[in-house]
Amino acid sequence: SFVAFSPVVNRSLWAFMLPHLLCLMCFAVISLAENTEMVNVVTERKAEESHRQDSANLLIFIMLLTLTILTIWLFKHRRFRFLHETGLAMIYGLFVGIILRFGVHFPQDLNDVTLTCAMNSSPTTVLVNVSGRFYEYSLKGEVRDSKGHDVPNAEMLRKVTFDPEVFFNILLPPIIFHAGYSLKRRHFFRNLGSILSYAFVGTLTSCFVTGLVMYGCVVFMKVIGQLGGDFFFTDCLFFGAIVSATDPVTVLAIFNELKVDVDLYALMFGESVLNDAVAIILSSSIVAYQPEGDNRHTFDGSALLKSLGVFLGVFSGSFAMGAATGVMTALVTKFTKLRDFPLLETALFFLMSWSTFLLAEACSFTGVVAVLFCGITQAHYTYNNLSAESKSRSKQLFELLDFLAENFIFSYMGLTLFSFQHHVFNPFFIIGAFLAIFLGRAANIYPLSFLLNLGRKNKIASNFQHVMMFSGLRGAMTFALSIRDTATYARQLMFSTTLLIVFFTVWVCGGGTTPMLSLIVGVDTDQDNSVSSTHVTAPDGMTQRNTKHESAWPFRLWYTFDHNYLKPFLTHSGPPLTSTLPACCGPIARCLTSSQAYENAGQLHDEDTELILNDGSSLMYSDMTVSTDAHGMPTSQAGLYSLAGTSDDPLDREIVFGGTRLVLPTDEPPDPLTSFPPPPPSPPLSDPLRHRV
Amino acid sequence: SFVAFSPVVNRSLWAFMLPHLLCLMCFAVISLAENTEMVNVVTERKAEESHRQDSANLLIFIMLLTLTILTIWLFKHRRFRFLHETGLAMIYGLFVGIILRFGVHFPQDLNDVTLTCAMNSSPTTVLVNVSGRFYEYSLKGEVRDSKGHDVPNAEMLRKVTFDPEVFFNILLPPIIFHAGYSLKRRHFFRNLGSILSYAFVGTLTSCFVTGLVMYGCVVFMKVIGQLGGDFFFTDCLFFGAIVSATDPVTVLAIFNELKVDVDLYALMFGESVLNDAVAIILSSSIVAYQPEGDNRHTFDGSALLKSLGVFLGVFSGSFAMGAATGVMTALVTKFTKLRDFPLLETALFFLMSWSTFLLAEACSFTGVVAVLFCGITQAHYTYNNLSAESKSRSKQLFELLDFLAENFIFSYMGLTLFSFQHHVFNPFFIIGAFLAIFLGRAANIYPLSFLLNLGRKNKIASNFQHVMMFSGLRGAMTFALSIRDTATYARQLMFSTTLLIVFFTVWVCGGGTTPMLSLIVGVDTDQDNSVSSTHVTAPDGMTQRNTKHESAWPFRLWYTFDHNYLKPFLTHSGPPLTSTLPACCGPIARCLTSSQAYENAGQLHDEDTELILNDGSSLMYSDMTVSTDAHGMPTSQAGLYSLAGTSDDPLDREIVFGGTRLVLPTDEPPDPLTSFPPPPPSPPLSDPLRHRV
Repeated sequence: SFVAFSPVVNRSLWAFMLPHLLCLMCFAVISLAENTEMVNVVTERKAEESHRQDSANLLIFIMLLTLTILTIWLFKHRRFRFLHETGLAMIYGLFVGIILRFGVHFPQDLNDVTLTCAMNSSPTTVLVNVSGRFYEYSLKGEVRDSKGHDVPNAEMLRKVTFDPEVFFNILLPPIIFHAGYSLKRRHFFRNLGSILSYAFVGTLTSCFVTGLVMYGCVVFMKVIGQLGGDFFFTDCLFFGAIVSATDPVTVLAIFNELKVDVDLYALMFGESVLNDAVAIILSSSIVAYQPEGDNRHTFDGSALLKSLGVFLGVFSGSFAMGAATGVMTALVTKFTKLRDFPLLETALFFLMSWSTFLLAEACSFTGVVAVLFCGITQAHYTYNNLSAESKSRSKQLFELLDFLAENFIFSYMGLTLFSFQHHVFNPFFIIGAFLAIFLGRAANIYPLSFLLNLGRKNKIASNFQHVMMFSGLRGAMTFALSIRDTATYARQLMFSTTLLIVFFTVWVCGGGTTPMLSLIVGVDTDQDNSVSSTHVTAPDGMTQRNTKHESAWPFRLWYTFDHNYLKPFLTHSGPPLTSTLPACCGPIARCLTSSQAYENAGQLHDEDTELILNDGSSLMYSDMTVSTDAHGMPTSQAGLYSLAGTSDDPLDREIVFGGTRLVLPTDEPPDPLTSFPPPPPSPPLSDPLRHRV
Repeated sequence: SFVAFSPVVNRSLWAFMLPHLLCLMCFAVISLAENTEMVNVVTERKAEESHRQDSANLLIFIMLLTLTILTIWLFKHRRFRFLHETGLAMIYGLFVGIILRFGVHFPQDLNDVTLTCAMNSSPTTVLVNVSGRFYEYSLKGEVRDSKGHDVPNAEMLRKVTFDPEVFFNILLPPIIFHAGYSLKRRHFFRNLGSILSYAFVGTLTSCFVTGLVMYGCVVFMKVIGQLGGDFFFTDCLFFGAIVSATDPVTVLAIFNELKVDVDLYALMFGESVLNDAVAIILSSSIVAYQPEGDNRHTFDGSALLKSLGVFLGVFSGSFAMGAATGVMTALVTKFTKLRDFPLLETALFFLMSWSTFLLAEACSFTGVVAVLFCGITQAHYTYNNLSAESKSRSKQLFELLDFLAENFIFSYMGLTLFSFQHHVFNPFFIIGAFLAIFLGRAANIYPLSFLLNLGRKNKIASNFQHVMMFSGLRGAMTFALSIRDTATYARQLMFSTTLLIVFFTVWVCGGGTTPMLSLIVGVDTDQDNSVSSTHVTAPDGMTQRNTKHESAWPFRLWYTFDHNYLKPFLTHSGPPLTSTLPACCGPIARCLTSSQAYENAGQLHDEDTELILNDGSSLMYSDMTVSTDAHGMPTSQAGLYSLAGTSDDPLDREIVFGGTRLVLPTDEPPDPLTSFPPPPPSPPLSDPLRHRV
């Protein structure tokens, strides 16, 4: 009888947990209400009250996340896949937003004192002299006129609302870093040309097409008298830029559940990651262009060119900064014996990656973009230098941070629909926007794919293009960019519309990708976790195994340079620098080459070369499982494999076995303990002589 | 020739890294200076400038931490152990503080506008009407009179200074949680009675003795005219409370480098962890008592009793809250199959532990204390339910957070000595304070040890007591408590003195513990990492192997209850509830007992019983290596062992093999792969049928 009890307990626990969590949330809400009443206390202890309020606010979100996690588990447990976890987080956020807005009534806090004084500026700090004692106040921002007081619970809703900068400085960096860190895929570099085209040319095209369509829509709205404020052409372009950022997180999560073609995956993922970088800098250069021109209605070529200069400057600056930190971390981890102390190593890795963000922000570059390129560099070089434990530590750490930040953003999105107090919903604008993003995405994908196919040996099939068209979800980046500034009418209109676009794409496109993919690409979406039944039925346009891959000369040039000079310089792998550098650099080369490089110079690393330049035969499908790995590879396995196989790149190796194997013939079950060479002579991890921290 | 290159490269890299890091730091400083000049911009973009400043500030600390990590590595690499890593972090902080204060000159920012208005209160938000536009300002706190303007770079130093609440809300929780999470040691529970006595009675004694000595000192200072302001008896007691908190982090770190007796370790560590909880609540109940009495100079019994009530209320409330969250997490992880998805499991574990803190703060209890007991409960129950990957994930995550937070606090401490602008150093007070903490600690340790020895079978030897006396370092908690409020003269005097006490204890006692221990206890401090030479020479007072351990009846009662009811209810281990609960509770018991409990009910778990209640013979020394484990056990090992041995408690098991073995006879080298039973029939981790997230 005790074999069958488990589902019963599960269900009853669920029934127990749900009200319990809701109780806790209600408690947090009530605690908020109490706090709001107690604001009249006139001492400095008010700061304590405000602290209690903040705790209660944050508790609401923590409970939301907990609830989301439990529901995600339930969905996964029951193999219930019509809704994606980010969509789920949004729904919970929506519910809490509704409760906060309509369910509870909070007394109005009328404690704000309005000082009227003859200042001609708004300083960052103000000292207020209250009967002889000085209190310091810091600027929070301009407040719109107080017409907003008809909204119920305005005070409390304002308190639940986070500073938009939180998204840029706390929540986006781990998400973007993790995306960059997951890009260490051979297929990414093999498709680099196409990915860069989609990211740069495509995003620019999408931005301008969307902007133009929106401008038409806005002109139409003005004619029929539906426009409630100014909406300039630059605003349209700005809107185009922010909705052009497709979400790598959702793409990753959805494609991960499916078994799609590895090239499609690399293209989609690479495009959506770089997309974000382009969109964020594009939007900020449009903002930089805006205050210049007083002729905002007309097209100003020279100002646009200047804006393009800003775009290129910020982009290359952020890129350089991210790459520089990555290279520095690689050098430090290569030349110090820090790998003997995994904790120190992981801490250094984390701090260096974080400092990229801060450095870029302090230099007025874009921290998020710098972090992206830092992630890519770290994955490409530094990762190889880390000890086995640091590899798994850093992966798990960034994975957890990414998971938490992502779900936090999506549940906050749901909440915002009701807690934000300056929504401007306009049906014409919304319909226009949906039309515009559809056209913008189409103008990005189809012409570019046609042009790219002229040069590509491995053509992008038309059903491929439909998938890319359809799965361009808008997510965290679009939201963060639109919430950053909601001061003017135009921005409020944009924010509300963007929110709806995100909801629609995540729920409908996100939920619909699974059936659509199985329809269009013919992918076997029946996920029964057994290796034998997961063969990909190759779509007609793709003859994957026998085609030559995109290996244009710039790529080959870069690859050779990377393989011969950068990798040996920054990591322990690759050919020794003594053999690749000219003879005159002999002493330097000897100094920079590690002893491992000489040992490893054999066939183990030629394997890597083959995999990139030639057809990878069966191993080329290993990248398929990138996201399986990104969502919970057991460490013990990872540890076991990295003890067993010791190539310079155990990540790739481990993925082959850790993930679901796709094309390996099932009559050859890979045994991780026997299919790899025996442990090398380098000291094993269990050596008692090993230094301990 | 390429064998010898490594130290050369190491040294040259060091020579390269150091100026590079210093350059970055200088850049951050210069960027600060630039920013300060640019404050005159009159638009809202000022917020952006302030953001750049914050980034630069944070960058300074990140660079400090990076530098500290690299130096720690260098010290460990060179086996250079006279200075502890926290001491190192403080020294770097000191240097940066000196540079910021004296090295660079920043233009004075005169942008603060002083509004004088007839308000009779200081509201939390103020709306300022600047020529028709409303700007919102939020209260930052009361500013002391502007006499501080003689300090150079005052504006910049103020900007580098963090909000003291950052310590309580961001940096302390991970440190304290990690300490609690590391307390899962049999020796802790075996010595629970003594630990609780030291923590409660001892800390109270120490607080009052220190307070009385300080009161004498203050009265003396008043007589000779050295006192510059009010300093009441409650202030003395408050000072006694904050300096009674000994630092578990430093204790852990120092004892970890040595091979000391396991009972000494458990006593010291347990005492210093609970110490913090007692001190924080003690200090807040003294503050709560303070505004009541207008007779602050005399002893008021009834008010003290009321204060004691507050103490007990807050303590038990925080305890209950922490334990409740721990129990809830244990239930969720037990009854859901969340362990199939390690990422979700770790995220849930992290969020639940964090919500303890927020919940306690929202209820006006003490979040830090709640987090401590949450950590203990999580380690005791929830940890057993986690999957192998989540175990290592959660350990590594909290270890990293602890490491970063700890080093951040200590480098900030160094910085504060120069950046804090209201230091009050008084030689009489400082000498008095050093005398007082010495007497307070002595009054805590010696009489209590004498009393405890009356009841203990395993006596606390007198050289034991000297070690406890000497290694009571003051660290993060003392600092955080003293910086929390530096508004009055008394608090400023306390803060400056506390800073010196922390510096002294960390540098002198911390650095001196190693030689002192070898002198007093006769511990073999020569750490040459080989198992054969690390026998502990048992000190004369301790006949460890043949003594009965402290197992008084309350402990036995609790243990039986825990073993028979709590462990089976909350985890998969222990005897099935069906066998321990009376027959009438049959259906409930069947429902709550997991199938694993029936399977595991055999001899594997009796082993656990033996280890706690009887003499653990050779295995009793396994806890020795707790901190080796806490600073970098390779995961691969952990994974290997948890695959090999699958008791309910792989942490304990793994420690036996992962750490340096102390008393195991060297002719019996333990082989992790053979000394444990083969893997059980439960599905192995590499099972392809396993669900993937």
